[in-house]
Amino acid sequence: MLRRNQKGAAVQNNPHTTLITPDAPVAANTHGGRAKCLQRLVRLEMPVPRTVALSFDAVHRIAEGEIPDLTAILEQFDSAALLCVRPSSEDPDWGGPGAVLNIGMNDARYVDLSDTMGAEAAAALYLRFVQSYAVHVARLDADVFDDIEADGSEGLRQSLRAYEDETDEAFPQDRGEQLIAVLRSMARAWDGTSARLLRQAKGAPADAGLGLVIQEMIPGVGQGECGSGVLQLVDITTGMPQITGRYLSQSQGRDALGAGVSALFLEKDPRGLSLEEVAPKAFADLKAQAALMREKLREEMQVEFVIENGHVHILDGVRVQRSARAAMRIAVRLAEDEIIPPQEAVMRVDPHALNELLHRQVHPEARRDVLTTGIGASPGASTGRIVFTAAEAQASAARGEACILVRRETSPEDVRGMHAAVAVLTEKGGMTSHAAVIGRGLGLPCIVGASEMRFQTKKKILSAPDGRVFKTGDILTIDGSSGQVLAGQPAMLEATLDDCFQTLMGWADAERDIEIRANADTPADAQTARNFQAQGIGLCRTEHMFFDPGRLIVMREMIFAQTSSGRAAVLERLLPMQREDFAQLFRIMEGQPVCIRLFDPPLHEFLPTTRSGQRELAEALDLPVSDVERRVDAMSEYNPMLGMRGVRLGVTVPEIYDMQARAIFEATLEASKNGAPVVPEVMIPLVSAKREVELVKSRIDSVAAAVAAEQGQEFEYRLGVMVETPRACLRAEEIAPHTAFLSFGTNDLTQMTYGLSRDDAGRFMSAYVRQGVFTEDPFHVLDPDGVGELLKLGAERGRAAQPDVTLSVCGEHGGNPESIAICRDLGFDYVSCSPFRVPVARLAAAQLAISSRLGG
Amino acid sequence: MLRRNQKGAAVQNNPHTTLITPDAPVAANTHGGRAKCLQRLVRLEMPVPRTVALSFDAVHRIAEGEIPDLTAILEQFDSAALLCVRPSSEDPDWGGPGAVLNIGMNDARYVDLSDTMGAEAAAALYLRFVQSYAVHVARLDADVFDDIEADGSEGLRQSLRAYEDETDEAFPQDRGEQLIAVLRSMARAWDGTSARLLRQAKGAPADAGLGLVIQEMIPGVGQGECGSGVLQLVDITTGMPQITGRYLSQSQGRDALGAGVSALFLEKDPRGLSLEEVAPKAFADLKAQAALMREKLREEMQVEFVIENGHVHILDGVRVQRSARAAMRIAVRLAEDEIIPPQEAVMRVDPHALNELLHRQVHPEARRDVLTTGIGASPGASTGRIVFTAAEAQASAARGEACILVRRETSPEDVRGMHAAVAVLTEKGGMTSHAAVIGRGLGLPCIVGASEMRFQTKKKILSAPDGRVFKTGDILTIDGSSGQVLAGQPAMLEATLDDCFQTLMGWADAERDIEIRANADTPADAQTARNFQAQGIGLCRTEHMFFDPGRLIVMREMIFAQTSSGRAAVLERLLPMQREDFAQLFRIMEGQPVCIRLFDPPLHEFLPTTRSGQRELAEALDLPVSDVERRVDAMSEYNPMLGMRGVRLGVTVPEIYDMQARAIFEATLEASKNGAPVVPEVMIPLVSAKREVELVKSRIDSVAAAVAAEQGQEFEYRLGVMVETPRACLRAEEIAPHTAFLSFGTNDLTQMTYGLSRDDAGRFMSAYVRQGVFTEDPFHVLDPDGVGELLKLGAERGRAAQPDVTLSVCGEHGGNPESIAICRDLGFDYVSCSPFRVPVARLAAAQLAISSRLGG
Repeated sequence: MLRRNQKGAAVQNNPHTTLITPDAPVAANTHGGRAKCLQRLVRLEMPVPRTVALSFDAVHRIAEGEIPDLTAILEQFDSAALLCVRPSSEDPDWGGPGAVLNIGMNDARYVDLSDTMGAEAAAALYLRFVQSYAVHVARLDADVFDDIEADGSEGLRQSLRAYEDETDEAFPQDRGEQLIAVLRSMARAWDGTSARLLRQAKGAPADAGLGLVIQEMIPGVGQGECGSGVLQLVDITTGMPQITGRYLSQSQGRDALGAGVSALFLEKDPRGLSLEEVAPKAFADLKAQAALMREKLREEMQVEFVIENGHVHILDGVRVQRSARAAMRIAVRLAEDEIIPPQEAVMRVDPHALNELLHRQVHPEARRDVLTTGIGASPGASTGRIVFTAAEAQASAARGEACILVRRETSPEDVRGMHAAVAVLTEKGGMTSHAAVIGRGLGLPCIVGASEMRFQTKKKILSAPDGRVFKTGDILTIDGSSGQVLAGQPAMLEATLDDCFQTLMGWADAERDIEIRANADTPADAQTARNFQAQGIGLCRTEHMFFDPGRLIVMREMIFAQTSSGRAAVLERLLPMQREDFAQLFRIMEGQPVCIRLFDPPLHEFLPTTRSGQRELAEALDLPVSDVERRVDAMSEYNPMLGMRGVRLGVTVPEIYDMQARAIFEATLEASKNGAPVVPEVMIPLVSAKREVELVKSRIDSVAAAVAAEQGQEFEYRLGVMVETPRACLRAEEIAPHTAFLSFGTNDLTQMTYGLSRDDAGRFMSAYVRQGVFTEDPFHVLDPDGVGELLKLGAERGRAAQPDVTLSVCGEHGGNPESIAICRDLGFDYVSCSPFRVPVARLAAAQLAISSRLGG
Repeated sequence: MLRRNQKGAAVQNNPHTTLITPDAPVAANTHGGRAKCLQRLVRLEMPVPRTVALSFDAVHRIAEGEIPDLTAILEQFDSAALLCVRPSSEDPDWGGPGAVLNIGMNDARYVDLSDTMGAEAAAALYLRFVQSYAVHVARLDADVFDDIEADGSEGLRQSLRAYEDETDEAFPQDRGEQLIAVLRSMARAWDGTSARLLRQAKGAPADAGLGLVIQEMIPGVGQGECGSGVLQLVDITTGMPQITGRYLSQSQGRDALGAGVSALFLEKDPRGLSLEEVAPKAFADLKAQAALMREKLREEMQVEFVIENGHVHILDGVRVQRSARAAMRIAVRLAEDEIIPPQEAVMRVDPHALNELLHRQVHPEARRDVLTTGIGASPGASTGRIVFTAAEAQASAARGEACILVRRETSPEDVRGMHAAVAVLTEKGGMTSHAAVIGRGLGLPCIVGASEMRFQTKKKILSAPDGRVFKTGDILTIDGSSGQVLAGQPAMLEATLDDCFQTLMGWADAERDIEIRANADTPADAQTARNFQAQGIGLCRTEHMFFDPGRLIVMREMIFAQTSSGRAAVLERLLPMQREDFAQLFRIMEGQPVCIRLFDPPLHEFLPTTRSGQRELAEALDLPVSDVERRVDAMSEYNPMLGMRGVRLGVTVPEIYDMQARAIFEATLEASKNGAPVVPEVMIPLVSAKREVELVKSRIDSVAAAVAAEQGQEFEYRLGVMVETPRACLRAEEIAPHTAFLSFGTNDLTQMTYGLSRDDAGRFMSAYVRQGVFTEDPFHVLDPDGVGELLKLGAERGRAAQPDVTLSVCGEHGGNPESIAICRDLGFDYVSCSPFRVPVARLAAAQLAISSRLGG
């Protein structure tokens, strides 16, 4: 029950219905963000109209039918004042019911105001209130007023009649009665289903409350220069300083924003008339107020104002909506202006949003002609003419034409085509399919699993679900960030890596306490990693080096060799190429650590899958085609993910690792001649038993000894294990003593912990997340419970056996902020992620360090 | 250094060179099993010739060059006695150098003995010694004596000359010198490489020692009835009581065994003359001694004896070698005769060997014409004519001809052919391939992965690696126990489940403290499980129920249905069939628990893989064939093991589980009408998150409620989870509260813990085990470290959250003794294994219980 109060002072003691004064008990979590913001403005002695705040609790009780204590409210206002009511949720992003203006208008006030401001203006005020009340409070259809063409007093008269006709009641004339109805209506709207779903989608808790603020209206219409508008000091797309906003004479609320050309600019502008010219004093006041607000509220604010006969009133301040890139610049500028400390600027930028800045993207305002949505497997957007074969892609590139390679799925034979394309689109596959992995490696926008489209690659026809047909040369756009396939050529927004970005990253690095490396397989990747200031390469996958056509045939000969010495002889031919691969990486990384994962994939990935490919291979090897078919068939696997790959090849076909180790060590000596000494890291994949490590280690140690003896020069190297089976985590205590580092491959570890193939999970993952079976896709966000516990056990046991073992995570999770938090909590030395995720990781890691220092 | 001793009594104090007396310090682990056994015979006051035992330590020092204390040895024997030396390793199975007889023979003794026993006999003794010494001690080639055709004194003369020619030395004449040379030669032979490898293969430790026994020779030649032989009281193949062995007059050592028809039977025998007839008193003595030996040594012994002028001497007793079935009968008879307690009989039968008894097998003595060795995926042996298609198999069965179905791999279309065949042979696949799983389910001998053979199934030709070609109708034998494919029709040994087996199992069950259930999918399986006294069904896989041709087409329609209600309508047609499946199982199991795993495999397994199959399906569904192709293609998976199966289907295509639950509950009520009330157990496969369990549970609970309401009768059921992902083990604490039981599916759990597909691991598993990378194949023996720890965590956490949750293991490991030990240690309630493994599991579990009661 509301207490009945006597006077203003007593009201201050009622925390649920309180006049906003500098000392009133108002907080965002009791009265909402708007109420709290208004109190701040009041404390800054800004010209804010008198305002009463209703708490969440008070509003909740109104929704449940309680009559608010009208006297307590109305005694705060002049009896002639018009009022408005606006929502005040805890977080302004959560929304709320629309504002209702001009409460208190009635026939008598209409007559009075007609005298002071003219009949036209008074009618406009009354009309606005009647229509708003009819729709929001009496719940009439807005089209009740559609037929009313007249404005002014005639429009008002017709509207009042329409109201009476629909409701069978006269329009309420009592201000108190009006206010109660508005408050109740707004309170109840908050509990509507769609409002609830909407705000919960934005992260609001189920029991989020609504506060309301009741403010005295400054009409914005009347004698002298009157009007309303909004102002902000930045461009919301770029974040650059620029006074933006609109002002409309003789208007209320946010009318100026919808007024088109009749609205004024604020600052002098060649495009039209401005407030600065019309009312220079008011403009100067307003600018000063805005600057004060930015400084004291430590944020870029949108100022909602009214000018009344040349005098400025500040109705409200709202945090400026902003694009990702604007958010970054705003934070950096606030820190550069010493309004906030750099740490806070770091905290204010969402690492997830940072991703947008690092890739070319479809312009946010461009029209998207979406043909289908597949799996966005490699971010960024590119436009090009579609081609259906690798050869066409190469021809297209030779002509200097951007092309998109369209395949049902890709295989090693397509890699040269992918190099030539600006984007890739496949019908099949998931996040770790061939196309996806190579696409990310090349930084090529890539969509896989676009299974709703029909791929008739032999006929060179691609059909959209809506029936549209695309042929060779037709232009599409691939948005690898969203997974959307777009027809035509929408406007693009280029990637930005400007000074502002570098400044923010510098501040972030100063705070960060876990290292960030990049996964980089190629010189281009390595260069990107350097550009993004990765602290080394955490995962260099070597298998992609064998997909080059010249090397592929050698690999195939190796697979067909019958003996160990035969395999070694064939691999000898790859040695100089591999050595140069590694030497290039070492040169680019200039002495930073480079962790090279030894050969990992099943050998059958290197064999041709098509009949014609098998025929060609048979010719090249001078074998009957039936032999080749048989071999391909015999090597196929039911579950390649769990098959003959990784260290299992290292143990059973050791010649490959021998060759790779030699290439690494020879490149090490070569690169160390001309620059910083290189200490390569050699990583053994897919380990499940310590004996695997012992066997491989002893061979690699002897290769190292042989190279050192041959070249007459000693060198260091670090041998480690990629921990990606649950068993390797559990047995880390016996594995760690043989290793310098343990790097957790969380992609495969997640697959095995869940028994879930990433390539195949796409079909039901979205249903699973929607039904809450998994709270998140565990391939995007590291599962803290299952996979996380294995990481914990692996880290603890590894360290117990070898306290100075280096611990890290490599794989896609390395770039995910939530996942980095888990690694940091476990005391990992570094995380490694794809080059384009490095800035995200650097920022996220910095935020974690800052939060934990704040005890957050 | 050996101490010099004065007299017999003093020698007794030298534990390294000791006369075997009842009180001598002789033990198997210092002097070897033979020395110890001889001491037991001495204690039984058997007529054992005087014997001196040399300890491991003494023999080791002799091997290293030390001269043995000859006086201490020789003073134990009459100066005229001939001696023999025999090996005495700790375990007689570990072998040792051959015995050397007649040490002490020389020219002078030859003359003496010629007087007493005749020149012929004396020459035979000397000749034997000379040749044996030449070969074993002087290391001459045995062929040195090949040209000597004469025997008697002429043969002796020529042999001595041959010895001198080869060695340039006269044959040594001094008994002591002879003895030292023999001892040194035998001591050193023990350290030879091949001897070491041989015994280590039999489980001997690297430092296993050799003892030697020096025994006075009772010649076996001479006046009156003289000769040697061996006797045992059982048939070594069957274990049935029967006096077997051979005796040869005027012979030594084990000559009787190689003498063919000239050797006598022991007991009266229609086939020829017997010792019983020739020397009834000696035979009676011998029989009495053998019976005494059996009773007091508590074992069936082979008695090695010599008859000297009608008197029996016992030279040695050796544990009778025996077949698996003989081992069982011998143990049971010893217990029935109250020589050993039943518990000990249980302990004496090797559970692994028991497997042999339960399947028809190739006769151990049959000649095996091995064409190739594949993966023995389902045990037992069958002979039949080969056919290459399921239709031929059915035709063959209709003619009453046993046939073997030969396929490159099998698919659901082949199941009817498998039903008609007596065995299955495939080129591809591993232990969990379709053919293997169905084969085990049908109890059909099955070999998969026979990749060295060439399968030209279209041409209906099967070629062996040696080039032999087999066509339709040719006869092969499949030995699914060893994996051998045999040409022709070797002799077979039928399975035995006689009284003796039942007796042993009864004793085992009395000791056992963990329950044993069977995995049974069909009524035939269930009946086998009952016959083997399984305590219920621990795993009923339901997917095989859908491979029947009549049901397969319904499944396919279901897969092609577009809507939930469409799927439900199609499944409705399967309901009565499924209900009858379960009703049958419940009837057979008569109220015992039946744990039914809900549908598990990926749906694409039910789609046709061949072009013609797809055409047929298109016709049946009245769809364009391209639609069918597209759908088959779209549903294919990269890693089906980790794909859309198990509970993932239950969550996303819930109509299948709904139908199955209804079938189970309706069958429950039906079966409970006529017999013991049935409490079905419903098991959810492939769980990785608790929410999966919640979702499925709530649907199944409502089906149960609906069935109870419709039929107006309440019933109980238990819902549980198959724990087969590492994550389910780790999160058991949150999963257990929703379940009545957790059953660990260790097949899949092993695959995921190692990241190793059982189907694909075959290619390198043997290399891995050989190199010691894995100590055992983890699919045969549960990995105690990795998978074992997950079981432990799962069990602990499950029990912590729900103390009365039932814990079990189902899967192949359930029948493996080492794996049962792990489950028992973790306090599991039961293990479940394939029906034919149930006796093995019962026995192994009983042994574990007995051992742990003995503190073992």
